[in-house]
Amino acid sequence: MKMATVRALTISTLAIFSIGALAAAQDAPASVSPLFGVALPSGYRDWQVVSVAHEAGDLNDVRAILGNSIAMQAFRTGRRPFPDGTIIARLAWKYESSPRNDAIFGKAQSFVAGAPTNVQIEVKDSRRYAATGGWGYGQFVDGRADPSEALMKTCVTCHSKLPAPDDRIFTSYAP
Amino acid sequence: MKMATVRALTISTLAIFSIGALAAAQDAPASVSPLFGVALPSGYRDWQVVSVAHEAGDLNDVRAILGNSIAMQAFRTGRRPFPDGTIIARLAWKYESSPRNDAIFGKAQSFVAGAPTNVQIEVKDSRRYAATGGWGYGQFVDGRADPSEALMKTCVTCHSKLPAPDDRIFTSYAP
Repeated sequence: MKMATVRALTISTLAIFSIGALAAAQDAPASVSPLFGVALPSGYRDWQVVSVAHEAGDLNDVRAILGNSIAMQAFRTGRRPFPDGTIIARLAWKYESSPRNDAIFGKAQSFVAGAPTNVQIEVKDSRRYAATGGWGYGQFVDGRADPSEALMKTCVTCHSKLPAPDDRIFTSYAP
Repeated sequence: MKMATVRALTISTLAIFSIGALAAAQDAPASVSPLFGVALPSGYRDWQVVSVAHEAGDLNDVRAILGNSIAMQAFRTGRRPFPDGTIIARLAWKYESSPRNDAIFGKAQSFVAGAPTNVQIEVKDSRRYAATGGWGYGQFVDGRADPSEALMKTCVTCHSKLPAPDDRIFTSYAP
Protein backbone atom coordinates (compact mmCIF):
# COMPACT_ATOMS: atom_id res chain seq x y z
CA MET A 1 0.00 0.00 0.00
CA LYS A 2 1.28 3.47 -0.91
CA MET A 3 1.79 6.00 1.88
CA ALA A 4 -0.96 8.26 0.48
CA THR A 5 -3.46 5.39 0.63
CA VAL A 6 -2.43 4.54 4.20
CA ARG A 7 -2.84 8.17 5.19
CA ALA A 8 -6.29 8.38 3.57
CA LEU A 9 -7.42 5.23 5.37
CA THR A 10 -6.10 6.53 8.68
CA ILE A 11 -7.99 9.79 8.26
CA SER A 12 -11.20 7.89 7.39
CA THR A 13 -10.78 5.73 10.48
CA LEU A 14 -10.26 8.77 12.69
CA ALA A 15 -13.37 10.36 11.19
CA ILE A 16 -15.43 7.28 12.07
CA PHE A 17 -14.08 7.31 15.64
CA SER A 18 -14.89 11.02 15.94
CA ILE A 19 -18.49 10.41 14.92
CA GLY A 20 -18.62 7.71 17.57
CA ALA A 21 -17.27 10.09 20.20
CA LEU A 22 -19.83 12.71 19.19
CA ALA A 23 -22.66 10.21 19.58
CA ALA A 24 -21.35 9.31 23.05
CA ALA A 25 -21.24 13.00 24.01
CA GLN A 26 -24.88 13.43 23.01
CA ASP A 27 -25.76 10.62 25.46
CA ALA A 28 -23.82 12.40 28.19
CA PRO A 29 -26.73 13.35 30.46
CA ALA A 30 -27.58 9.68 30.97
CA SER A 31 -24.15 8.11 31.26
CA VAL A 32 -21.97 10.73 32.94
CA SER A 33 -22.49 13.46 35.50
CA PRO A 34 -22.83 17.12 34.51
CA LEU A 35 -19.86 19.43 35.17
CA PHE A 36 -17.54 16.50 35.99
CA GLY A 37 -18.22 13.87 33.35
CA VAL A 38 -18.00 11.12 35.98
CA ALA A 39 -19.34 7.70 34.90
CA LEU A 40 -20.56 4.81 37.01
CA PRO A 41 -17.47 2.57 37.20
CA SER A 42 -17.99 -0.96 35.98
CA GLY A 43 -17.90 -3.56 38.74
CA TYR A 44 -18.21 -1.06 41.60
CA ARG A 45 -20.80 -3.25 43.37
CA ASP A 46 -18.07 -5.86 43.88
CA TRP A 47 -15.60 -3.47 45.51
CA GLN A 48 -14.41 -3.83 49.08
CA VAL A 49 -16.02 -2.03 52.01
CA VAL A 50 -14.52 1.14 53.47
CA SER A 51 -17.30 1.65 56.02
CA VAL A 52 -21.05 1.82 56.58
CA ALA A 53 -23.30 4.59 57.89
CA HIS A 54 -26.83 5.84 58.45
CA GLU A 55 -28.10 9.22 57.39
CA ALA A 56 -31.36 10.13 59.11
CA GLY A 57 -33.44 13.20 58.25
CA ASP A 58 -34.64 13.74 54.69
CA LEU A 59 -32.25 11.16 53.24
CA ASN A 60 -33.18 8.45 55.76
CA ASP A 61 -30.91 5.85 54.24
CA VAL A 62 -28.45 3.17 55.28
CA ARG A 63 -25.28 3.11 53.22
CA ALA A 64 -22.11 1.32 52.29
CA ILE A 65 -18.98 3.14 51.18
CA LEU A 66 -16.88 1.01 48.82
CA GLY A 67 -13.53 1.70 47.20
CA ASN A 68 -11.51 0.56 44.21
CA SER A 69 -8.11 -0.99 44.94
CA ILE A 70 -6.31 2.39 44.94
CA ALA A 71 -8.87 3.80 47.38
CA MET A 72 -8.68 0.78 49.68
CA GLN A 73 -4.90 0.94 49.89
CA ALA A 74 -5.04 4.66 50.73
CA PHE A 75 -7.75 4.15 53.36
CA ARG A 76 -5.88 1.26 54.97
CA THR A 77 -2.50 3.00 55.06
CA GLY A 78 -3.90 6.42 55.97
CA ARG A 79 -2.42 7.97 52.82
CA ARG A 80 -3.67 11.54 52.29
CA PRO A 81 -4.25 13.21 49.97
CA PHE A 82 -5.73 10.27 48.08
CA PRO A 83 -3.72 9.43 44.96
CA ASP A 84 -5.05 9.98 41.45
CA GLY A 85 -7.09 6.98 40.36
CA THR A 86 -8.91 6.72 43.68
CA ILE A 87 -12.60 6.02 43.17
CA ILE A 88 -15.08 5.86 46.03
CA ALA A 89 -18.64 4.57 45.61
CA ARG A 90 -21.33 5.44 48.14
CA LEU A 91 -24.30 3.07 47.80
CA ALA A 92 -27.48 3.87 49.72
CA TRP A 93 -30.73 2.08 50.40
CA LYS A 94 -33.93 3.12 52.14
CA TYR A 95 -33.65 2.77 55.91
CA GLU A 96 -36.45 0.42 56.92
CA SER A 97 -37.45 -1.24 60.14
CA SER A 98 -37.78 -5.02 60.04
CA PRO A 99 -40.93 -6.24 61.81
CA ARG A 100 -39.84 -9.83 61.04
CA ASN A 101 -36.51 -9.38 62.86
CA ASP A 102 -38.10 -7.39 65.69
CA ALA A 103 -40.56 -10.22 66.31
CA ILE A 104 -37.71 -12.74 66.54
CA PHE A 105 -35.59 -10.57 68.86
CA GLY A 106 -38.61 -9.54 70.92
CA LYS A 107 -37.66 -5.86 70.60
CA ALA A 108 -38.17 -3.10 68.04
CA GLN A 109 -34.50 -2.59 67.16
CA SER A 110 -33.76 -3.93 63.69
CA PHE A 111 -33.25 -1.63 60.68
CA VAL A 112 -32.31 -3.00 57.29
CA ALA A 113 -31.64 -1.90 53.71
CA GLY A 114 -34.77 -1.44 51.57
CA ALA A 115 -34.85 -0.39 47.93
CA PRO A 116 -31.73 1.31 46.57
CA THR A 117 -31.90 5.11 46.51
CA ASN A 118 -28.84 6.31 44.61
CA VAL A 119 -25.13 5.73 44.11
CA GLN A 120 -22.62 8.56 44.44
CA ILE A 121 -19.19 8.30 42.84
CA GLU A 122 -16.11 10.33 43.69
CA VAL A 123 -13.10 10.25 41.38
CA LYS A 124 -9.69 11.68 42.28
CA ASP A 125 -7.90 13.33 39.36
CA SER A 126 -5.80 16.20 40.62
CA ARG A 127 -5.37 17.76 37.16
CA ARG A 128 -8.80 17.29 35.63
CA TYR A 129 -10.58 18.36 38.82
CA ALA A 130 -7.99 20.89 40.06
CA ALA A 131 -10.71 23.51 40.58
CA THR A 132 -12.60 21.29 43.06
CA GLY A 133 -9.75 19.99 45.20
CA GLY A 134 -8.95 17.14 42.82
CA TRP A 135 -12.34 15.47 43.08
CA GLY A 136 -15.06 14.90 40.50
CA TYR A 137 -18.55 13.83 41.49
CA GLY A 138 -21.54 11.99 40.08
CA GLN A 139 -24.89 10.71 41.36
CA PHE A 140 -26.67 7.79 39.73
CA VAL A 141 -30.16 6.36 40.00
CA ASP A 142 -30.84 3.03 38.30
CA GLY A 143 -27.50 3.41 36.53
CA ARG A 144 -28.32 6.83 35.03
CA ALA A 145 -26.54 10.04 35.98
CA ASP A 146 -28.57 12.74 37.70
CA PRO A 147 -28.48 15.65 35.21
CA SER A 148 -28.65 18.40 37.85
CA GLU A 149 -25.71 20.80 37.83
CA ALA A 150 -27.01 22.34 41.06
CA LEU A 151 -26.75 18.93 42.74
CA MET A 152 -23.13 18.59 41.63
CA LYS A 153 -22.37 21.99 43.14
CA THR A 154 -23.77 20.86 46.50
CA CYS A 155 -21.29 17.95 46.44
CA VAL A 156 -18.45 20.43 46.16
CA THR A 157 -19.88 22.79 48.78
CA CYS A 158 -20.26 20.15 51.50
CA HIS A 159 -17.09 18.16 50.79
CA SER A 160 -14.99 21.33 50.77
CA LYS A 161 -16.14 22.10 54.33
CA LEU A 162 -14.23 19.10 55.71
CA PRO A 163 -10.96 19.72 57.56
CA ALA A 164 -8.02 19.81 55.11
CA PRO A 165 -6.39 16.58 56.38
CA ASP A 166 -9.53 14.64 55.35
CA ASP A 167 -8.91 15.55 51.67
CA ARG A 168 -12.65 16.23 51.19
CA ILE A 169 -13.66 12.67 52.14
CA PHE A 170 -16.19 12.12 54.94
CA THR A 171 -15.50 8.43 55.49
CA SER A 172 -12.80 6.79 57.57
CA TYR A 173 -11.84 3.13 57.21
CA ALA A 174 -13.78 0.82 59.54
CA PRO A 175 -11.38 -1.98 60.53
CA MET B 1 16.61 -47.10 53.43
CA LYS B 2 15.10 -50.33 54.70
CA MET B 3 11.30 -50.57 54.99
CA ALA B 4 11.54 -50.84 58.79
CA THR B 5 13.49 -47.60 58.96
CA VAL B 6 10.99 -45.86 56.68
CA ARG B 7 8.12 -47.11 58.82
CA ALA B 8 9.83 -45.89 62.03
CA LEU B 9 10.43 -42.46 60.51
CA THR B 10 6.85 -42.27 59.30
CA ILE B 11 5.55 -43.12 62.76
CA SER B 12 7.85 -40.49 64.33
CA THR B 13 6.63 -37.92 61.84
CA LEU B 14 3.00 -38.78 62.57
CA ALA B 15 3.73 -38.49 66.29
CA ILE B 16 5.15 -34.99 65.77
CA PHE B 17 2.12 -34.00 63.73
CA SER B 18 -0.17 -35.39 66.44
CA ILE B 19 1.55 -33.33 69.10
CA GLY B 20 1.05 -30.31 66.86
CA ALA B 21 -2.64 -31.11 66.46
CA LEU B 22 -2.98 -31.53 70.21
CA ALA B 23 -1.40 -28.12 70.81
CA ALA B 24 -3.82 -26.62 68.28
CA ALA B 25 -6.75 -28.26 70.06
CA GLN B 26 -5.63 -26.74 73.36
CA ASP B 27 -5.72 -23.32 71.69
CA ALA B 28 -9.21 -24.05 70.37
CA PRO B 29 -11.11 -21.58 72.55
CA ALA B 30 -9.15 -18.72 70.96
CA SER B 31 -9.15 -19.75 67.30
CA VAL B 32 -12.46 -21.54 66.74
CA SER B 33 -15.94 -21.27 68.17
CA PRO B 34 -17.24 -23.70 70.80
CA LEU B 35 -19.76 -26.35 69.70
CA PHE B 36 -19.19 -25.61 65.99
CA GLY B 37 -15.41 -25.26 65.57
CA VAL B 38 -15.91 -22.33 63.20
CA ALA B 39 -12.79 -20.25 62.49
CA LEU B 40 -12.48 -16.69 61.27
CA PRO B 41 -11.98 -17.14 57.50
CA SER B 42 -8.84 -15.56 56.12
CA GLY B 43 -9.49 -12.54 53.92
CA TYR B 44 -13.13 -12.11 54.99
CA ARG B 45 -12.66 -8.30 55.32
CA ASP B 46 -12.11 -8.15 51.56
CA TRP B 47 -15.34 -9.98 50.68
CA GLN B 48 -18.17 -8.39 48.74
CA VAL B 49 -21.16 -6.74 50.41
CA VAL B 50 -24.47 -8.55 50.77
CA SER B 51 -26.17 -5.72 52.66
CA VAL B 52 -25.88 -3.28 55.55
CA ALA B 53 -28.05 -2.75 58.65
CA HIS B 54 -28.43 -1.06 62.01
CA GLU B 55 -29.33 -2.82 65.23
CA ALA B 56 -30.49 -0.42 67.91
CA GLY B 57 -31.16 -1.42 71.53
CA ASP B 58 -28.45 -3.10 73.57
CA LEU B 59 -26.33 -3.89 70.51
CA ASN B 60 -26.50 -0.36 69.09
CA ASP B 61 -24.28 -1.12 66.13
CA VAL B 62 -24.06 -0.46 62.41
CA ARG B 63 -23.11 -3.49 60.37
CA ALA B 64 -22.02 -4.89 57.05
CA ILE B 65 -22.90 -8.40 55.92
CA LEU B 66 -20.26 -9.82 53.57
CA GLY B 67 -20.14 -13.11 51.71
CA ASN B 68 -17.57 -15.41 50.14
CA SER B 69 -17.97 -16.10 46.42
CA ILE B 70 -20.34 -19.05 46.98
CA ALA B 71 -22.51 -16.92 49.26
CA MET B 72 -22.59 -13.99 46.83
CA GLN B 73 -23.66 -16.17 43.93
CA ALA B 74 -26.46 -17.67 46.02
CA PHE B 75 -27.63 -14.27 47.27
CA ARG B 76 -27.61 -12.80 43.77
CA THR B 77 -29.41 -15.71 42.12
CA GLY B 78 -31.81 -16.27 45.02
CA ARG B 79 -30.60 -19.85 45.46
CA ARG B 80 -32.00 -21.41 48.64
CA PRO B 81 -31.06 -23.37 50.60
CA PHE B 82 -27.54 -21.97 50.45
CA PRO B 83 -25.04 -24.50 49.08
CA ASP B 84 -22.34 -26.09 51.22
CA GLY B 85 -19.29 -23.84 51.30
CA THR B 86 -21.33 -20.69 51.83
CA ILE B 87 -19.72 -18.44 54.42
CA ILE B 88 -21.32 -15.22 55.61
CA ALA B 89 -19.47 -12.65 57.73
CA ARG B 90 -21.36 -10.08 59.77
CA LEU B 91 -19.07 -7.22 60.78
CA ALA B 92 -20.36 -4.68 63.30
CA TRP B 93 -19.10 -1.37 64.64
CA LYS B 94 -20.38 0.95 67.38
CA TYR B 95 -23.19 3.18 66.11
CA GLU B 96 -21.98 6.73 66.68
CA SER B 97 -23.32 10.13 65.79
CA SER B 98 -20.95 12.37 63.86
CA PRO B 99 -20.90 15.94 65.22
CA ARG B 100 -18.46 16.87 62.43
CA ASN B 101 -20.85 15.73 59.69
CA ASP B 102 -23.88 17.20 61.46
CA ALA B 103 -22.17 20.60 61.59
CA ILE B 104 -21.49 20.47 57.84
CA PHE B 105 -25.03 19.36 56.95
CA GLY B 106 -26.60 21.75 59.45
CA LYS B 107 -28.71 18.94 60.92
CA ALA B 108 -28.21 16.20 63.50
CA GLN B 109 -28.62 13.26 61.14
CA SER B 110 -25.29 11.54 60.55
CA PHE B 111 -24.41 8.20 62.15
CA VAL B 112 -21.16 6.43 61.38
CA ALA B 113 -19.16 3.34 62.29
CA GLY B 114 -17.09 3.66 65.46
CA ALA B 115 -14.84 1.00 66.96
CA PRO B 116 -15.46 -2.58 65.81
CA THR B 117 -17.59 -4.66 68.20
CA ASN B 118 -17.48 -8.23 66.91
CA VAL B 119 -17.57 -10.38 63.79
CA GLN B 120 -20.02 -13.24 63.42
CA ILE B 121 -19.36 -16.04 60.95
CA GLU B 122 -21.89 -18.51 59.55
CA VAL B 123 -20.70 -21.56 57.67
CA LYS B 124 -22.97 -23.84 55.64
CA ASP B 125 -22.04 -27.51 55.88
CA SER B 126 -25.17 -29.62 55.63
CA ARG B 127 -23.49 -32.76 56.98
CA ARG B 128 -21.26 -31.38 59.73
CA TYR B 129 -23.99 -29.08 61.04
CA ALA B 130 -27.00 -31.28 60.21
CA ALA B 131 -28.36 -30.86 63.75
CA THR B 132 -28.57 -27.07 63.37
CA GLY B 133 -30.11 -26.74 59.92
CA GLY B 134 -26.76 -27.02 58.15
CA TRP B 135 -25.25 -23.92 59.76
CA GLY B 136 -22.31 -23.54 62.12
CA TYR B 137 -21.69 -20.31 64.00
CA GLY B 138 -18.86 -18.34 65.55
CA GLN B 139 -18.39 -14.91 67.13
CA PHE B 140 -15.01 -13.19 67.19
CA VAL B 141 -13.63 -10.17 69.03
CA ASP B 142 -10.20 -8.89 67.97
CA GLY B 143 -9.78 -12.10 65.98
CA ARG B 144 -10.42 -14.41 68.96
CA ALA B 145 -13.44 -16.69 69.24
CA ASP B 146 -15.92 -16.01 72.01
CA PRO B 147 -15.71 -19.15 74.18
CA SER B 148 -19.33 -19.06 75.35
CA GLU B 149 -21.36 -22.14 74.45
CA ALA B 150 -24.49 -20.36 75.66
CA LEU B 151 -23.88 -17.62 73.08
CA MET B 152 -23.60 -20.20 70.30
CA LYS B 153 -26.93 -21.67 71.37
CA THR B 154 -28.58 -18.27 71.07
CA CYS B 155 -27.37 -18.12 67.43
CA VAL B 156 -29.23 -21.35 66.74
CA THR B 157 -32.34 -20.28 68.65
CA CYS B 158 -32.82 -17.00 66.81
CA HIS B 159 -31.81 -18.16 63.32
CA SER B 160 -34.10 -21.17 63.55
CA LYS B 161 -37.08 -18.84 64.09
CA LEU B 162 -36.81 -17.47 60.55
CA PRO B 163 -39.34 -18.67 57.94
CA ALA B 164 -38.12 -21.86 56.25
CA PRO B 165 -37.56 -20.26 52.81
CA ASP B 166 -34.92 -17.94 54.35
CA ASP B 167 -32.73 -20.96 55.21
CA ARG B 168 -31.96 -19.44 58.63
CA ILE B 169 -30.39 -16.30 57.12
CA PHE B 170 -31.70 -12.87 58.17
CA THR B 171 -30.11 -10.88 55.35
CA SER B 172 -31.36 -10.33 51.80
CA TYR B 173 -29.15 -9.07 48.99
CA ALA B 174 -29.19 -5.26 48.64
CA PRO B 175 -28.86 -4.53 44.92
